[in-house]
Amino acid sequence: MNQRTVPDVVVRRLTQYYYALRSCQERGLEIVSSQLLGEMLNVTAAQIRKDLSFFGGFGKQGIGYNVETLLEHVQRILGLKQEWPVALVGLGNLGRALLHYQGFAQEGFKIVAAFDADPRKVGTSAGGLTIHDDKEISQTVPAMGIRIAILALPPDKAQEVAESLVKAGVRALLNYAPVTLKVPEGVWVRQMDPLVALQSMTYYLVGNEAL
Amino acid sequence: MNQRTVPDVVVRRLTQYYYALRSCQERGLEIVSSQLLGEMLNVTAAQIRKDLSFFGGFGKQGIGYNVETLLEHVQRILGLKQEWPVALVGLGNLGRALLHYQGFAQEGFKIVAAFDADPRKVGTSAGGLTIHDDKEISQTVPAMGIRIAILALPPDKAQEVAESLVKAGVRALLNYAPVTLKVPEGVWVRQMDPLVALQSMTYYLVGNEAL
Repeated sequence: MNQRTVPDVVVRRLTQYYYALRSCQERGLEIVSSQLLGEMLNVTAAQIRKDLSFFGGFGKQGIGYNVETLLEHVQRILGLKQEWPVALVGLGNLGRALLHYQGFAQEGFKIVAAFDADPRKVGTSAGGLTIHDDKEISQTVPAMGIRIAILALPPDKAQEVAESLVKAGVRALLNYAPVTLKVPEGVWVRQMDPLVALQSMTYYLVGNEAL
Repeated sequence: MNQRTVPDVVVRRLTQYYYALRSCQERGLEIVSSQLLGEMLNVTAAQIRKDLSFFGGFGKQGIGYNVETLLEHVQRILGLKQEWPVALVGLGNLGRALLHYQGFAQEGFKIVAAFDADPRKVGTSAGGLTIHDDKEISQTVPAMGIRIAILALPPDKAQEVAESLVKAGVRALLNYAPVTLKVPEGVWVRQMDPLVALQSMTYYLVGNEAL
């Protein structure tokens, strides 16, 4: 299989399969149909079959998918069977909230290094970690084998920090700064932009009368 | 035009058109081709034409789109030509970070009411707002004409608060709690889930050798 051929939208949806299958498992289901998965994900059963066909045929015609087997496959495909060390850059209110978010560690993402440019923060501790200066990214990130970073920075700092992270070996950036980061090919960015999320909902609040 | 027929993925992409067109405007472009828009949005030119055809034909064959006209239309379609009063629920680190995020007000989303269930926070002020008790949602939200709310709450509180917000007239929820909210039809939720964002990137960090 050539992973290049899997559209990013399918990769993103795969995380929904992961949660849906876990919920099936918690409910004690052994087999799940593409119909039920479709209802859980709010897509058609045909879409489910098409999505999963990218990764090989897991289901049996007229029987459905074995929940445990499919969950195992989805976890492996998504890289969720391992622990990922994560760097956090920016220790303002948002950064601190993220540092205390239990969900990361529960799902195998462990924030192991924290960076901030503010000399008043450097050397202090937060969430059990000592805050390091941004300048130490180039040594600490490769030394700890970190390939994932979370940016909780003001917009004007994000691009520069992203570049130093990428140079240090980071390949996946979760960006809270409301800017589009420019990154080389092979580096992935997910944008946590509350503004865009709001702007994509107001569509439904106006009547579009003017159209 | 029946707005029901516009897929949510197109609505979400419309926010990207908005930012792309603004950037065209800042660069002084009067006309933009579907090719250029496609490059900016990372989709095909055909996709651009298809997306925009949902809202009527804005472009001229072989000429392209007038930047200002299209931007104006996109803003109107997305409901971005007006101010939206917003409620924020949850004044922990994350809530406080959101309260200080300049981007909201710049784009017409004004946080006008803040709520928290913690009696130690109620009555204190944050970001120029007095924090109210969650119980006041039922009076304050309709009184202020609020239809949009941001939930910066622990997962076990989010559903209950969402229900009281919806009862009070909120129709769009930006949810930071890592739970899937159950809401009635006609209410929209966007999930700000850092975990899912991370889990959809690790796919690219593993070789998928096992497939």
